[in-house]
Amino acid sequence: MEQYSDPLDGIFQALADPTRRAVLARLGSGPASISDLAGPFDMALPSFMKHIHFLEGSGLIRTEKQGRVRTCTIDKNRFAAIEAWMSAQRLLWEGRNDRLEHFVMAAQNKEK
Amino acid sequence: MEQYSDPLDGIFQALADPTRRAVLARLGSGPASISDLAGPFDMALPSFMKHIHFLEGSGLIRTEKQGRVRTCTIDKNRFAAIEAWMSAQRLLWEGRNDRLEHFVMAAQNKEK
Repeated sequence: MEQYSDPLDGIFQALADPTRRAVLARLGSGPASISDLAGPFDMALPSFMKHIHFLEGSGLIRTEKQGRVRTCTIDKNRFAAIEAWMSAQRLLWEGRNDRLEHFVMAAQNKEK
Repeated sequence: MEQYSDPLDGIFQALADPTRRAVLARLGSGPASISDLAGPFDMALPSFMKHIHFLEGSGLIRTEKQGRVRTCTIDKNRFAAIEAWMSAQRLLWEGRNDRLEHFVMAAQNKEK
């Protein structure tokens, strides 16, 4: 299977790293420059940039360069894919519980 | 940084694969044996077992062997960690919107 044929692959992969999650948390409060974002991390800039490129590739952030400064912005719409997956998962669980409930109700009715 | 020092690393890594997400979706409807789970996938059993071990390692599923059959069960509690992370992210966004709203309200009051 081709890697990232489903956008969720890239999104979840992007979230599977504490540095990238910390960057997303920071960007949740508003856009920030690469140097502001990199500040708190004890990491060489090229390593940090790999995380930024990874996040950008997943669509969770957008970056824009104005002059010498590249600014990163979170793309909240991309998080909708995660919410949708979680909701679908929850529907499956509830469907199961509904069937279990029907089974219990039917068993109780038989006992009456 | 040590790999998987945060359980979220393993959880999101587990979700970053279409086979593993499909297994979770199937288990959302109830427990299943390894052979039932492997059925729909055009994959050698050792490759499939790697996905099962990965899911088990992340805590998203539990497996139990009775006789010759190993049964897999989803652990919904583990999904709470994802929900908690998403909620924290949403709080950051809302905090930002609240501040933006205060700014707009203050600007409007000044105009009056």
